Amino acid sequence: MRSLSTVNHSVPLAANFTAVSKSESREFMSVFPDLVRDLTDKTKKYDRADASKWFAKALQYNVPRGKKNRGLVTVMAYKILVDQNQLTPENLRKAQYLGWCVEMLQSVFLITDDIMDGSTTRRGQPCWYKNEDVGMMAINDGLMIENGIYYILKKNFEGTDYYIKLVELFHETMMITTIGQSLDVQTSTKDITSFTMDRYKAIVEHKTAFYTFYLPVALAMHMAGYTDPEVFRQVKTILLEMGYFFQVQDDFLDCFGNPEITGKIGTDIQENKCTWLSVLCMQRASRDQKEIMKECYGKSDPEKVKKIVELYAELGLPHTYTLYEEESYNLIKTHIQQTSRGVPHKLFFQIMDKIYRRDS
Amino acid sequence: MRSLSTVNHSVPLAANFTAVSKSESREFMSVFPDLVRDLTDKTKKYDRADASKWFAKALQYNVPRGKKNRGLVTVMAYKILVDQNQLTPENLRKAQYLGWCVEMLQSVFLITDDIMDGSTTRRGQPCWYKNEDVGMMAINDGLMIENGIYYILKKNFEGTDYYIKLVELFHETMMITTIGQSLDVQTSTKDITSFTMDRYKAIVEHKTAFYTFYLPVALAMHMAGYTDPEVFRQVKTILLEMGYFFQVQDDFLDCFGNPEITGKIGTDIQENKCTWLSVLCMQRASRDQKEIMKECYGKSDPEKVKKIVELYAELGLPHTYTLYEEESYNLIKTHIQQTSRGVPHKLFFQIMDKIYRRDS
Repeated sequence: MRSLSTVNHSVPLAANFTAVSKSESREFMSVFPDLVRDLTDKTKKYDRADASKWFAKALQYNVPRGKKNRGLVTVMAYKILVDQNQLTPENLRKAQYLGWCVEMLQSVFLITDDIMDGSTTRRGQPCWYKNEDVGMMAINDGLMIENGIYYILKKNFEGTDYYIKLVELFHETMMITTIGQSLDVQTSTKDITSFTMDRYKAIVEHKTAFYTFYLPVALAMHMAGYTDPEVFRQVKTILLEMGYFFQVQDDFLDCFGNPEITGKIGTDIQENKCTWLSVLCMQRASRDQKEIMKECYGKSDPEKVKKIVELYAELGLPHTYTLYEEESYNLIKTHIQQTSRGVPHKLFFQIMDKIYRRDS
Repeated sequence: MRSLSTVNHSVPLAANFTAVSKSESREFMSVFPDLVRDLTDKTKKYDRADASKWFAKALQYNVPRGKKNRGLVTVMAYKILVDQNQLTPENLRKAQYLGWCVEMLQSVFLITDDIMDGSTTRRGQPCWYKNEDVGMMAINDGLMIENGIYYILKKNFEGTDYYIKLVELFHETMMITTIGQSLDVQTSTKDITSFTMDRYKAIVEHKTAFYTFYLPVALAMHMAGYTDPEVFRQVKTILLEMGYFFQVQDDFLDCFGNPEITGKIGTDIQENKCTWLSVLCMQRASRDQKEIMKECYGKSDPEKVKKIVELYAELGLPHTYTLYEEESYNLIKTHIQQTSRGVPHKLFFQIMDKIYRRDS
């Protein structure tokens, strides 16, 4: 059972990624070998040895393996935002490169997060750093991929009046995301009593919403010629709201979703995560119920996990979620309809449709 | 005994860093608290929690602890390159911020290198990641400091016509240095028979010479209004030569220097490092001598290390070094004197004087 079906969406919010055009994804993927060649041509100029080969291997292993939603959204947004007579094969290709830059950024975060979390697998293969010949060199590979982004931007956008805007947006995104990561790690080492909704919101907005929802669209907007800061501000507000909503959904499904549909078994409770459910629970819990949280949250003992789930149910959190979901969806819809300065509403609705079950 | 004294330098090449004006260093240091405040003000805008405090701690622990040669050279170069009427307190301060950006870059490499090398101490204190409350979060801190550079550049140089040049130079430096790091790590896992002078030169130029010697001067040149690519090319050639020379010197002193003067006991042989000595040795060794190298290089057994040092001596490497040193110094001097397009020779000679025993 997916509780989303209780909301009457005019746009199918819960559409699975498989609904996304396969040809779009194929088209996007077809550019990747050129990207790798561009980047390794660049490194070949510098070195007289085999750093290029290594770089190509790191790119191929880490960048194109996920669902590529962020990259695809970049291209999709550009197609919607630009005048049709501007949609030349050259511009489309540039938008695809921009999409790959977002995917490169994402891969930097995944490579380093996996080391920080001590993870072992990612997307059905060993984490990059878990490969025998890689190890902690993965950190250096992350830095190489990160800086590869700027080479790609320079090669494709130098001389345009928005080149510096793209560069600065990547800088800002890196900064915001690392702040989110820092908050997240600091929080998960803390006691459940210190979790607040304010902190939860800060983690979600910084760590995932900004680079997953705002970055792809803002890049496309720059490329499509948008310059009014007020439009960027409006778009950011809506996209961060969407990012927040989807994270709440993620948290809910981690605990109450059907693993046969979500495809994973939740571990948020065991990992002492600051989630929407745990924060809400602490807000509502009686003194005794708080004691249960303190005793059982962040433990791997299945009995303790079960107690937490029961407490969530006892406090009516699934019902609260259903109400919140409807409310939040309507709020986002209203915000979309209130935007007036030239960003087609279709763009937002397609994103709600597209980035649904995120890879991470 | 320092063999450098055998060369008759018109400029005291072996001048110790203590010869550098203490007031310059104090002046430079006095800007650091402002830099930290700027950066944490920036992060405060984003978060509603304590990521700023953490960031300040990471900056203070990692950025200002070394000799700050690279930062000081940036300021010194600017002072030499700019017209005296341009040397306002405001511009001086900007040059100092630029110097701190180089120090921030350096700290990113040190933080990540320490993890990759599994080091335990750095500059007389535990490596950042070795602190109990840090661990692998150090990787995220490195990314935060790296991206802090771009915030400082934007804050101080946005609107100047060289802003994008500064940004691109940092991108390029990150890329080149990570290529060098990649080459270095790959090489040190290999057999001594695969070490070549070509590979040695590639490692040195990429991993240290570019960011240590070229970056500070090139930044100052941009700020002082230099735009002719030919001047940058000439300056780069000379500074990379200097960087190469100093690394050769480092390698020599690691093995044959007096620990009482150098302040450290060399471990290059034990660590299987691709050094100037090991490459030269393999070039000159007879079949039997190569067997000694294969058997004893990269081993911690003191008897084996001793055999390597004896072999180096037997092959006359100390004498070769003395000749090379004189030759190289004269070559660099000639190159400096041949530069004609407006970079004062004084600048190069002061760098030879200043960056002498590098911190790393």
